[in-house]
Amino acid sequence: MAKIILQSVLFQGKIQDILISGKKFAKVGRTLTARDYDKAEVVNCKGLAIVPPFYNGHTHAAMTLLRGYADDMPLQKWLQEYIWPFEAKLTAKDIEIGSRLAVLEMIKSGTVFFSDMYWHREVTMKVVKEMGIRAAIGVTIAENLDSPEHIEENFKFLQDHRYENDRVKLAVMPHSIYTVGEKIFKRCAKVANAENYVLHTHLSETLTEIKDCKKQYGCSPVELLAKWDILGDHMVAAHCVHLSEYDMSLMAESGSAAILNPCSNLKLGSGIPKVNALLDSGMLVGLGTDGASSNNNLDMHEEMKLISLLAKVEPKTGKAESLPAEEALKLATANPALAYGIPAGVIAEGFLADALLLDLKNERLVPNHNLVSNWVYAADSSAIHSVICNGKFVMKNRHVDGEEEILKDAQKIAKRS
Amino acid sequence: MAKIILQSVLFQGKIQDILISGKKFAKVGRTLTARDYDKAEVVNCKGLAIVPPFYNGHTHAAMTLLRGYADDMPLQKWLQEYIWPFEAKLTAKDIEIGSRLAVLEMIKSGTVFFSDMYWHREVTMKVVKEMGIRAAIGVTIAENLDSPEHIEENFKFLQDHRYENDRVKLAVMPHSIYTVGEKIFKRCAKVANAENYVLHTHLSETLTEIKDCKKQYGCSPVELLAKWDILGDHMVAAHCVHLSEYDMSLMAESGSAAILNPCSNLKLGSGIPKVNALLDSGMLVGLGTDGASSNNNLDMHEEMKLISLLAKVEPKTGKAESLPAEEALKLATANPALAYGIPAGVIAEGFLADALLLDLKNERLVPNHNLVSNWVYAADSSAIHSVICNGKFVMKNRHVDGEEEILKDAQKIAKRS
Repeated sequence: MAKIILQSVLFQGKIQDILISGKKFAKVGRTLTARDYDKAEVVNCKGLAIVPPFYNGHTHAAMTLLRGYADDMPLQKWLQEYIWPFEAKLTAKDIEIGSRLAVLEMIKSGTVFFSDMYWHREVTMKVVKEMGIRAAIGVTIAENLDSPEHIEENFKFLQDHRYENDRVKLAVMPHSIYTVGEKIFKRCAKVANAENYVLHTHLSETLTEIKDCKKQYGCSPVELLAKWDILGDHMVAAHCVHLSEYDMSLMAESGSAAILNPCSNLKLGSGIPKVNALLDSGMLVGLGTDGASSNNNLDMHEEMKLISLLAKVEPKTGKAESLPAEEALKLATANPALAYGIPAGVIAEGFLADALLLDLKNERLVPNHNLVSNWVYAADSSAIHSVICNGKFVMKNRHVDGEEEILKDAQKIAKRS
Repeated sequence: MAKIILQSVLFQGKIQDILISGKKFAKVGRTLTARDYDKAEVVNCKGLAIVPPFYNGHTHAAMTLLRGYADDMPLQKWLQEYIWPFEAKLTAKDIEIGSRLAVLEMIKSGTVFFSDMYWHREVTMKVVKEMGIRAAIGVTIAENLDSPEHIEENFKFLQDHRYENDRVKLAVMPHSIYTVGEKIFKRCAKVANAENYVLHTHLSETLTEIKDCKKQYGCSPVELLAKWDILGDHMVAAHCVHLSEYDMSLMAESGSAAILNPCSNLKLGSGIPKVNALLDSGMLVGLGTDGASSNNNLDMHEEMKLISLLAKVEPKTGKAESLPAEEALKLATANPALAYGIPAGVIAEGFLADALLLDLKNERLVPNHNLVSNWVYAADSSAIHSVICNGKFVMKNRHVDGEEEILKDAQKIAKRS
């Protein structure tokens, strides 16, 4: 098995040597032996610190192509006059290029996993396999857009493919309660439970969704999913902006997880997620970026800082002590990894060898009174020196293979539009 | 006069050549002649875009030394057990090093001006002069900390020094209505009006300040300053988180400006500034970062994105259309420049030649449907290629002179503490 030794890296306040063997951390916090060094690639990490990388719990990767295409307008106008007409013209090749741009941006901002709800899943799977990071690629189901035949194909795809490799998983993604009805939603949940897929959906994102749901079904979206028996530990719900206390207790008790997307929720004027209340309910809470057309980037660091700031002014509960740096970091790393069943997001023996190396000479990490505080509250992506996923470098000294070509291809599509 | 030609730079959607002559933009949006090229330094800007740089309307620069020293705790504990004891040990030399670190960080994140409220103003003035950016350096007055003799010295300093050079101005900075009484506050305002200094103070930052003011004086802090006849077009007030409609009208009618510091206000749990309401009142509104001990950086880009996001969920007024990218950019550039009387923050003929060159190959600026949207909503400091202040490059291709030494010196002080 390939071995890498990260030599003299700052970890938990001490200069240490860390051994990666194959895909996993083999020795952390122990002295390495001559045997460990045998045939190992030794990487000098003097002046670098190691922290867990980001796991993006909700996005639409190829929407990088729509970055800045339409902003600062009401949701319906945005969708109907700009986003949907643009998307209607996208080919599988376009989506491949958009996904490549997304993965490039994610790597550069320290993300090694994303959960993707979009179309042309095969090309996104190919991109992720080639570029070396992880993903849960959605089989996306929306009854307002897909024909019954297409939906049957989707279920067949889920049966035929299972987990594709150790970095790329499939997930079942009914779009939302307002685009998928009871019958298909229940079928999605059944497949997810039987085949151990994550079940991912948009949930309680806007007040309009809540209002319409109450009108149509007489209950909240979360109550509806509970009634349909959809909640459970396979459920990973994106947004969860407008949950009642009862909604929270239903989700927490069922083992469902919430993925908050604060930048997108604020930018679209949807509302402010109540992160303290969600955490207090006992729910597993992680973060995602949503698509680049509503964020307008895929930077998990921004979500991490923003959710921590919002926690401190949350009505009723917010105070300066709310969601301290260490906790905010977990929301962007270990928690979303856990929600998607990936044993990663922690720098510890036996966990998958995913990591960021931070440049301690970056001015925002100076002085180094507290590395986690500096990383969460002061730094931005410019502090990221290298990115490791599954025991391999996917960025070294800020270089990602193929970068120039990806950028050129993406610009070409934009010009065509 | 020295001349620089920025050749083939993207400006307002077109590839253009821009002539800087001495400290100012001489030709923007016109064809350059052979005479313009005579003895000019020609800088190839192919693949770069020009945008205005940031003007940081409120900070305490040397507090970079306290970055990450104490976080996530109540304000009183933070001040009394951590910040004040640390500050008590700081020498003039320390403050010089802290200011250098601050200026380095500001340049790297695209800021060319800051308003500084701190002590040992002479060393900060020296640092700013040497490092090539602009500042309004405060003569800071706090009756709870300064002796009457020290306060007399401060007023004498203001009389003796006037504007030091074209990049460094002095400003009169009574700390706040809870640390400066009527007599001294009025004297500060009198000097500011007579000598044309900006009058800068903390105002309506926390609910405690409002409550205490109402108890002591029977009115809000803004009403108090109106009563004392302090408001006016020399007044630039930091924070302004908790203003009533009446407070806003008093400030707007008097020509006073507000500098919002959203990251700091959220991080300390003080509250969310109501930017839509403030702008609707007709007030001049700009942004600042506050000190690095409560932010924890000096990144104006973060403030710009955050205030735009917060506007979209502001109670009563917030919607997706609130504070669009172009407006948010002004809050971080032209508006604070205007508040401090600096004819800059706009790329236009006759204005001071301050600018950022953005790298169009940065993945977050791709695709380029809308540069301003990409810059405000998608980018971070990694997109900044070069920084120009007063007609000179202070950062070129991400290099700032003396960077390594500044970082080393700052780390030494931190270790000593």
